[in-house]
Amino acid sequence: MEGVLERLAELLVILVAAKVGAEAMARLRQPAVIGELIMGVIVGGSVLAWVNVDEGTLISTLAEIGVILLLFEVGLETDLRDFVRLGKRAASVALIGVVTPFGLGFFAARALDLGGGSTEVAIFLGAAMTATSVGITARVFADLRRLDTDEARTIIGAAVIDDIIGLIILAVVAGLLGNDGAFEIASLFTITAKALAFLVVVVVVGVVLVPYFFRFLRFLRVEGSFVVGSFVFAIAVGIAAERLAGLEPIVGAFAAGLVAGQTEFNERIHAELRPVAFLFVPIFFLAIGAQVDVGVLLEPRVLLAGGVISLLAVAGKLVAGLGVSGTPMSRSVVGVGMIPRGEVGLIFAALGAGQLSAVVGSEENAIVVLMVVVTTLTAPLVLNALLRREPVTGEAPSPEVDAILDTPFLGGVEVDGSSPEPGDAD
Amino acid sequence: MEGVLERLAELLVILVAAKVGAEAMARLRQPAVIGELIMGVIVGGSVLAWVNVDEGTLISTLAEIGVILLLFEVGLETDLRDFVRLGKRAASVALIGVVTPFGLGFFAARALDLGGGSTEVAIFLGAAMTATSVGITARVFADLRRLDTDEARTIIGAAVIDDIIGLIILAVVAGLLGNDGAFEIASLFTITAKALAFLVVVVVVGVVLVPYFFRFLRFLRVEGSFVVGSFVFAIAVGIAAERLAGLEPIVGAFAAGLVAGQTEFNERIHAELRPVAFLFVPIFFLAIGAQVDVGVLLEPRVLLAGGVISLLAVAGKLVAGLGVSGTPMSRSVVGVGMIPRGEVGLIFAALGAGQLSAVVGSEENAIVVLMVVVTTLTAPLVLNALLRREPVTGEAPSPEVDAILDTPFLGGVEVDGSSPEPGDAD
Repeated sequence: MEGVLERLAELLVILVAAKVGAEAMARLRQPAVIGELIMGVIVGGSVLAWVNVDEGTLISTLAEIGVILLLFEVGLETDLRDFVRLGKRAASVALIGVVTPFGLGFFAARALDLGGGSTEVAIFLGAAMTATSVGITARVFADLRRLDTDEARTIIGAAVIDDIIGLIILAVVAGLLGNDGAFEIASLFTITAKALAFLVVVVVVGVVLVPYFFRFLRFLRVEGSFVVGSFVFAIAVGIAAERLAGLEPIVGAFAAGLVAGQTEFNERIHAELRPVAFLFVPIFFLAIGAQVDVGVLLEPRVLLAGGVISLLAVAGKLVAGLGVSGTPMSRSVVGVGMIPRGEVGLIFAALGAGQLSAVVGSEENAIVVLMVVVTTLTAPLVLNALLRREPVTGEAPSPEVDAILDTPFLGGVEVDGSSPEPGDAD
Repeated sequence: MEGVLERLAELLVILVAAKVGAEAMARLRQPAVIGELIMGVIVGGSVLAWVNVDEGTLISTLAEIGVILLLFEVGLETDLRDFVRLGKRAASVALIGVVTPFGLGFFAARALDLGGGSTEVAIFLGAAMTATSVGITARVFADLRRLDTDEARTIIGAAVIDDIIGLIILAVVAGLLGNDGAFEIASLFTITAKALAFLVVVVVVGVVLVPYFFRFLRFLRVEGSFVVGSFVFAIAVGIAAERLAGLEPIVGAFAAGLVAGQTEFNERIHAELRPVAFLFVPIFFLAIGAQVDVGVLLEPRVLLAGGVISLLAVAGKLVAGLGVSGTPMSRSVVGVGMIPRGEVGLIFAALGAGQLSAVVGSEENAIVVLMVVVTTLTAPLVLNALLRREPVTGEAPSPEVDAILDTPFLGGVEVDGSSPEPGDAD
């Protein structure tokens, strides 16, 4: 009983902290997610240490449920046809958003002499900069009720593609730099084929079978079958994505939501899962914030090199917005939407601290964490300003990347970029 | 990630098993809770071992949230005035329902020569038989939509009083039989005073302050504040009950619900927490089932003595129904409603296996577990039959305990009582 009640108390701290942060941001007309991230840093291990979000804790599991439900909901609100229509654009955005940050990171690492100018460290840093966290961006669009824009759909599509590319990059980096020091082209092909096949099967088979599943749920007599069935469906496809195809569970959950959204039960699933999502989703963002170790980020060398790398990480993804050139979509919105590295960036940091620790020093790893923190915390601020200021989904052509940099708002963000977050967190 | 996904998979197994059991029972016109308990035994450690519900696991925490939400909801649906009106009757039911089972258990232990006829074992067994699990009974009433009957209110009131008496009994038993071998009258007084004071303060102060809390929640701009606030409120009062007054968290949650139910937000809290409760509540009942170790219950001596003790445990609480004599309430419904020992009985079993293991042998402890299983699984069946068959809340005077024993249904239960559950569980 003791242990259970302590865990429950920790959960309450997280929920209250998330609501305080979210409410503060709402009053400042910022997306709630920023407040949750900042409160996470504050209650996390490196500042107040009120909550423990390590692997295997209750909170880490509830956080995973939260992000799965979030992406399931995003999938629900996405029309499969729009998604296919925008597929080519999304692919361009994803590719530019992988190649540019990798190149910038690789050369910056050498120029800054990180890890004594080692090629391995340069590859690691470049690879870490390719990540995209769709959770953060999707939340900002959801907070501002803009999920039904072409920009949102393109970013989410690009993030899904990015996750598949990310699988390949992770395999190459771990194979190239890890203990075995080798990787096979054949296995890369297998990894990619499995991921693509999984998504195609979920969507194609799902469109046929999923309506029967929800009709079956409606047919059950026990109350609550519908909400529990929807919850189980989202998480089961998420687990299957990871187990069968090596994809992030959220990619599976998104595909599940996409398919469920095509059924006549779309509205009902959404309505019944809403209160559940309200409870779980903030736990994820708070946990992301709580994983930040403020102390490590405050060393001068980390701050300096990390500031430069963070700026390049922002620039590299802004360039990805060019993937929607020639369409009425806002290149700046799409570019900024790709910036946050979030939990995907932290996977690279975990790899650097674990499996690759012989190659990647703690300082270089701290730089990656700083880059993740800066991109994760600043992108929602900028995206919020952009979405409030300008029309999206082709209502009018958007100002360029240059124009964003002109705004006083992004001025502030750039300062954050070079001497970043920890100040916020104290 | 591995660990998190395995935990999520376990959660899905539990949710699906709970729904399968619940749906099967709904088709058999039985309360869903019975199906959840039986499926719990099946997926639990001693049969399929698909789930682990030990202290400290994710599931044990989610189960605690489930039972807290259940009792909060029961509190929401209870009118404070009815509750006060029925207080005296509830106290009679609680007192008879403690004294009779204790007496029966004490003398049966000596007659059956349990623990070599030791007085300590007789006290332990008698004490274990005094427990009441309000969760099970409340779920049956809720499943059948009968929470708004005087019988339900009286049983719940009696269970709350029972929990306070249970605190005293636990303190005496642990003091008398435990390592220190002593207890002080003064500390018994303190325990009782703290528990009563806590409940009075929650209700009296709560009636004044709680409306402001929910008005404040409504005033917040961030979506989901209301459902998260209600959830936090229920659990916070539950934790406080345990920490400040040594009460079961569910007693605190019930008091919190009682107070919240008096506000103008009653309907809204209920509606928003509903899908959340649908998700968490079944986890509790499944976890209760999963704690049953079928193997230990199958030893002949345990089956024989346990059968007798189980019958006496049923009889002892049936007698408690006499506490509502002279009212239009059904004595049989009230008596049967007090029968399940559930998780409260398991607390005694845990005490017997742990702190008191020098006094209580594994065989005697298995008898307690068997008694808990029999009372927990059979009472919902009988209660269901009774509630479907006869009017409650004074719509007409009820048949006597004799009359129940005449029904073919309870015939079945009596057989269960003397050669019980394990057959069901295989």
